[in-house]
Formats: sequence, structure tokens, C-alpha cells
Amino acid sequence: MTDFEKVGYSDGSVELTALHARPAGPVRAAVAIYPTFMNSTPGVEAKARQLVEAGYAILIGDFYGPEAPSNPEEAFVAMHKLRSDPKAMRRRLRAMLDLLRKLEPGVPHLAIGFCLGGMAVLEMARDGQDLAAVVSFHGLLETALPATAPIKPRILICHGDADALVPRSQVIAFWEEMGAVSADWHFHSYAGVEHGFTNPSMLDGSPNPAYDTSADRQSWAAMFGLFESYLGRSEPDRR
Amino acid sequence: MTDFEKVGYSDGSVELTALHARPAGPVRAAVAIYPTFMNSTPGVEAKARQLVEAGYAILIGDFYGPEAPSNPEEAFVAMHKLRSDPKAMRRRLRAMLDLLRKLEPGVPHLAIGFCLGGMAVLEMARDGQDLAAVVSFHGLLETALPATAPIKPRILICHGDADALVPRSQVIAFWEEMGAVSADWHFHSYAGVEHGFTNPSMLDGSPNPAYDTSADRQSWAAMFGLFESYLGRSEPDRR
Repeated sequence: MTDFEKVGYSDGSVELTALHARPAGPVRAAVAIYPTFMNSTPGVEAKARQLVEAGYAILIGDFYGPEAPSNPEEAFVAMHKLRSDPKAMRRRLRAMLDLLRKLEPGVPHLAIGFCLGGMAVLEMARDGQDLAAVVSFHGLLETALPATAPIKPRILICHGDADALVPRSQVIAFWEEMGAVSADWHFHSYAGVEHGFTNPSMLDGSPNPAYDTSADRQSWAAMFGLFESYLGRSEPDRR
Repeated sequence: MTDFEKVGYSDGSVELTALHARPAGPVRAAVAIYPTFMNSTPGVEAKARQLVEAGYAILIGDFYGPEAPSNPEEAFVAMHKLRSDPKAMRRRLRAMLDLLRKLEPGVPHLAIGFCLGGMAVLEMARDGQDLAAVVSFHGLLETALPATAPIKPRILICHGDADALVPRSQVIAFWEEMGAVSADWHFHSYAGVEHGFTNPSMLDGSPNPAYDTSADRQSWAAMFGLFESYLGRSEPDRR
């Protein structure tokens, strides 16, 4: 099983710790993984391992540093503090991309994220970051700083239509925001699927009632389809 | 290259002609293909051949019979005539499924459609037809007879966000209609992509300006992902 190496980085005076891993063979591309509002979890690390096995270098970011939450209540507080200063939040998120570029130069850079991390990849797209593609899994689509300049990455949104945190009005507002800057997005919405559909287990290890096998598998396959289309490799024959 | 066999069928007194083809080996499932408002086209037949090569039996339907249009102007007239009596239209569409079940008994039945054909597969879902899954490619989402009873097939909609025939208001209305009967749908929307994105060529053979390579490939892969999830085969490893 892939081991992760801890790598320190910083945002101003805040010390952060990312998790880094590389495939045994050549690196096809490097993926910044923005985790959930709980920071990295076993679910996020399982996804990261699948990327490494598929030939991608990965870096799992750290939203909080020493103030990392140890339970959902603390995580809500920490997330709201992070989001309360949108420009400072972007600095925090950018620090991780800077580290990724330092660790994995010379390959295409991609970003994915889950929940808060899904919002994070869109914030980096809105921020003008030079990424090839970003994928949000059940991420928040709203922003305090709507895009005003062209967006570089292709965007894939994998969204549960029953996500209580992302109502349809937020979906439409996102399409309008992205349309105004002619962003290149694909939006996948799954009927009856709730927030957190990629994660089989709750933090205490119990089954996650919002987990959806089909949405999880199809969104993950769609991510690889997007990456492979960028990397110039055709979709495998599906026979 | 796969040859199609012409098979006659009828809707009341109207004689219709479908195109049928089967793989050399075992049949994984049978797919009803509802073509465009022009009836079958080289683009539709190319898709049908890909399905046959992937192990599916296919049947391309006939919307019009002897009144088949020979150019887009005639096709618009014929389509509007067909749509002017929604119940009669459903009878016409059902006749093709009856033929598919007769030709290909004992395997799962699926349906896909393009443009008018996309609307057709949704009409068959609304009609209560026993299909495992249906896929609409740049299909119309509106209906004269909204669903009132549970819908059997899983539904995948592959939609160009810039499709002038299917504005966002129609998208939202569709979600609401499907939500009211708890249908199981996946909705894929592609930014800036127009109606007819699956078809590389216009009817005269000239390039189709609405064709979108990425949306075409990714929607086609999503269709196979849906079919394979139903048929109990996991998505192939994407490494």
C-alpha cells in the first residue's frame, strides 16, 4: 500500500503539513488533493492511493495547520474561520499549489477536492491558477469572490442533486458566474444523491448514509476521463 | 463493418422499417436506438456499429415510415406532425420497443436517442416502459405528458448547456418533473456545447459546427459506464 510522506510548508506564520506520494514508475501528472473540512481522512487517502496506482503523483493539503480539528464540531468552527476571510483563504490554498509545483515540476498540474476541498479547487480556478483541470466532488459552488477573469483549467463538477448544502439556486448561480468568464466546465448531477457521496464511512468508521456507490464510481471514472482527455490519451475501449 | 438488416414493423396502418444488427458473439443486452428528426443518419449508424462491436444487439427505429423526410425542411414538418398528437407519438415509439423485445428476448433492454430520439427515450420512460436504462444525447427534455407514475429505467441525460432548443428553464422543469416521481437520473451538462454535439457531419457531409469531440467522447463513455453498472460489470481500470 502506498505510504505518504509528510512535507512541511507554510502560509505566513502558520505551519502546515501536506501528505505526498508518487508512483513507482513515471509520473503522468501531479494532483493537488484538497481534503474535506475535517482535513485528510481515510476516505480521502484511499482516493489518493488510487491516483498513485494510476500513475499520478499526489499531494494532500492541510487547511488548518496546528489548529486541525479532531471532531466535526471543531471542524465546522475551523472551516468558518477559514472562510471568514476569503482572500486569506486563497493564500492558504495557493501555498499548497506552490508546494506541489516545487515537488513535482515539469508535469501537468491538476487539482481535485471533496466538500470544502471541492470549493477550494474552484477558488483556485477563480484565482487564475495555472492548472490543467480541476474536479469538485460534492463541493460548495458559492464564492465570496466571483470570477472576473478567464479561468485556465477545465472544470468538472460532480454534484448530488439532493445535496442540502448546494441547492439548485446555487447551481444556476454557478453556471451564470462561469458563463460570464466563458469557463470550460462539465457539470454532472445525480438524482437523489446527497452531500458526501464519495465517502463510504463516517469519521467514526460507521457506514455513511449519504454514500452512493454509483455516483462514487461514475464520478471517479469521469475524473479519469477528463484527465486522460487532457493528457492526450484516448478513453480506453469499453468493450 | 457491421451490416444492418432491414426489419419491417407497423404502427396501425403505417408501415415502418427498422435496422437491426447483432454482435458475432454473445449478446450482452439489446439497445433500441431512436434516431434524429431526420430518421437514421450516417452518424447514428456509426454509433450503432460501435455498440455492436461492444457486444450489444441494436435496433434503429423509424419515426415516419413512407413519409420519411429527405431534407431538414421536410423533417421539421414531419417531426411537428408526429409531436402534434403526443399519445399517437408514444404508440409509434412503443411499436419499436415491441419489435426489439420480439427480436431480442431474454436480455436486458436499453434505449438511447439523439435529438428527437433523446426525447423519444424519455417519452418511453414516462410511458412506464420496462427498460433497464435510457440515455438521451442532446434530446429535448420537455413533454406534453409529464410523468405521473414511477419510472423504471435509470436515466442519463447528456446535454449541451448552449443547446438553443433546451434552455436552462427546461432543464430545471425536467428535474422537477423527474423529482416528483423519484426517477433515478444522472444529468451531464457541458459548457458552451450546442445541440447535435455527437454528430461530426452535417447531412450534406460538411463538418458540423456544433460537433464537440470532448462532449461526444465523454458522453459516449458515460453511456457505457451506465450500461456496465447495470449489467454488473465494473468500470474497467482506467490506468
